[in-house]
Amino acid sequence: MTDAELRRRAMKVVPGGMYGHLNAALFAPGFPQFFARGEGCRQWDVDGREYIDFMCSWGPVVLGHRHPRVEAAAAEQAALGDCLNGPGPIMVELAELLVDTVPSADWAMFSKNGTDATTQALMVARAATGRTKVLVAHGAYHGADPWCTPSLSGTTPNERADLVEFTYNSLTSLEAAAATVEGDVAAIIVTPFKHDSFEDQELVEPAFARGARALADRLGAALVIDDVRAGFRIDLRGSWEPYGVRPDLTAWSKAMANGYPIAAVTGTDALRGAAQTLYSTGSFWFSAVAMAAAKATIETLRDTGGIGSMERAGTQLREGLYAQAKSHGFVVNQTGPVTIPWLSFDGDADLSVALYWSDACLRHGVYIHPWHNWFMSAAHTEADVTRALEGTDQAFAETRAHFG
Amino acid sequence: MTDAELRRRAMKVVPGGMYGHLNAALFAPGFPQFFARGEGCRQWDVDGREYIDFMCSWGPVVLGHRHPRVEAAAAEQAALGDCLNGPGPIMVELAELLVDTVPSADWAMFSKNGTDATTQALMVARAATGRTKVLVAHGAYHGADPWCTPSLSGTTPNERADLVEFTYNSLTSLEAAAATVEGDVAAIIVTPFKHDSFEDQELVEPAFARGARALADRLGAALVIDDVRAGFRIDLRGSWEPYGVRPDLTAWSKAMANGYPIAAVTGTDALRGAAQTLYSTGSFWFSAVAMAAAKATIETLRDTGGIGSMERAGTQLREGLYAQAKSHGFVVNQTGPVTIPWLSFDGDADLSVALYWSDACLRHGVYIHPWHNWFMSAAHTEADVTRALEGTDQAFAETRAHFG
Repeated sequence: MTDAELRRRAMKVVPGGMYGHLNAALFAPGFPQFFARGEGCRQWDVDGREYIDFMCSWGPVVLGHRHPRVEAAAAEQAALGDCLNGPGPIMVELAELLVDTVPSADWAMFSKNGTDATTQALMVARAATGRTKVLVAHGAYHGADPWCTPSLSGTTPNERADLVEFTYNSLTSLEAAAATVEGDVAAIIVTPFKHDSFEDQELVEPAFARGARALADRLGAALVIDDVRAGFRIDLRGSWEPYGVRPDLTAWSKAMANGYPIAAVTGTDALRGAAQTLYSTGSFWFSAVAMAAAKATIETLRDTGGIGSMERAGTQLREGLYAQAKSHGFVVNQTGPVTIPWLSFDGDADLSVALYWSDACLRHGVYIHPWHNWFMSAAHTEADVTRALEGTDQAFAETRAHFG
Repeated sequence: MTDAELRRRAMKVVPGGMYGHLNAALFAPGFPQFFARGEGCRQWDVDGREYIDFMCSWGPVVLGHRHPRVEAAAAEQAALGDCLNGPGPIMVELAELLVDTVPSADWAMFSKNGTDATTQALMVARAATGRTKVLVAHGAYHGADPWCTPSLSGTTPNERADLVEFTYNSLTSLEAAAATVEGDVAAIIVTPFKHDSFEDQELVEPAFARGARALADRLGAALVIDDVRAGFRIDLRGSWEPYGVRPDLTAWSKAMANGYPIAAVTGTDALRGAAQTLYSTGSFWFSAVAMAAAKATIETLRDTGGIGSMERAGTQLREGLYAQAKSHGFVVNQTGPVTIPWLSFDGDADLSVALYWSDACLRHGVYIHPWHNWFMSAAHTEADVTRALEGTDQAFAETRAHFG
């Protein structure tokens, strides 16, 4: 069954043939919609094309597909049971591991989606403060529930009435946002760096991070880090730990279990009582297999220096791409952490160069994305990146030839 | 590691030691918190106690734990990949199966939680109508997001401002609710029968189901059936199909994949365009393993007459419990479909008899619940129910001895 045939069938039984962040219609024309297989840092589409993959399934796959230690832990648990009448011992072990690993974590709660975790974090903050408003950066992605989805379709004004926007990295704007709802700020929610789609990424200004912490303290509000996208790729202790800034609550998901579905909120002792008052739950939130996979993933990242591996591979990729772009006469911007990289072409406002180049990369066996950040995994070896750079070099050459 | 030891450890790293619907602190004192293993209709807690299980993990396990056909389908997919850069062919196959099975389904969208599906259904309805309000039955459970969680802790008034309540099975109250927000009703959301906790269950009045359908048509609003809890245990075609009432949208989850985490919305052609406008998505929503499990689960239920098996076992259980209760001098009410049964003791307003009896059932190897409905699975054989009834008979005797 080819990609084209599957798309025709999907068009009949799935709205638009596909929807959400994996809808290939939103990328360049040559992107495959349907995938057959993954192994390490490689993926194969249903037409049999092989890619060195720098999207890592949009973040979850942090150790590479079918990582032996993660698969063994998941299989061992699955042989006993997954979704039972209560959690397994693995829930306690995983919560202990998070509390041991993350300095701001005194406890953990589990769920399935990143959106579950960001929503739950705001519920804890509201329960703790008895307040309603949340300060949120303009354009930041915190999930796809009505309160946070980037499209307003299907949402109501009431569902977003408790949000006040500020500008990322501007302490002045954060303070101004707080002033508009004085006395009613439950939380400030912030991504560890600015990773909005269609824009160059922007690392956090340390002074902004420290200022947000100080403001939350002054207001008696919770500082929530949405580490769903960046978690486990910058610092296992939490992505603002290198800046010495600790949140009250952190939302985790994506890379937590190397592709198994799980999310978590961690928080401080001060918020434990509030967390306990929620009725926040789901049919599969306490299933044991994803928890076993999460424990194995985090331990493997820790024991093997997984983030260091991603940094080395990401640096090799970034340096290689800069040299290639220059040699082909392109000015490019590479932004964000090297483990969560992105490349844009200077002056490419309509993305025409990026779309052409990403399509060319695909044809040369390299899967990257034209308008969303990429993800490195610990499975990307030096040889993999070297091989990928051969593909990107040809893609730059073809892009130069096309645009003249 | 005993249940008591795990509870002590959990108390340190999980708010309250546990939370949500699986928090054993909410049941009778003897209920175990942590589970070690499941097989067919049996579960074992971490202290090694074996139960014939009538909760089925609160619904998901509909064929019994570790069902060979489901496990084989999941393993076959897992060997290829689960969370990839796009969906697998299995997404199309599963959507086709739902469209073939459910007469009101022209398309399907997938997610992870029942709450995802109910929320997404309302988003589709709002996108289609451009309206904001939703009519919802007082006391009905539609999930645990802020708009629907039964506890108000952590929610804001704005998050629930678009809901208007009516009384289940009262067409007068449904029409009165609609009248309060005339011209702005996007949807009526309704469970296929009344299965609120702490109360006897109540089947839908056919006239109410037909009236809700007619009212939705008159208003130009969507009729949404929340079949998360009851789906795949009453009628594979949808739980109101026996009444000849078809919804515009249906939310599915729980039993859909025999414990693998997945949810879905199905809808009619008229709503396809609206569904396409949403940006509703999640990191693991398109993962292939749960979809393979869902396809195998639905096909197995279809090919083996799974609902018929559950009906036979549920009828045997209901008749057995009525006879035992009578012989021990108790008047009990058994309500809801026999596949989603529940038993309450007449005049037991404070649940003291139910709590004692459920605890006694546990001691005799039968896992049921004192204030939430139970679930049958196709793995419950006549011999299993006969064995369970030996346990419930002893539990009735001990309850009689205790209360005199």
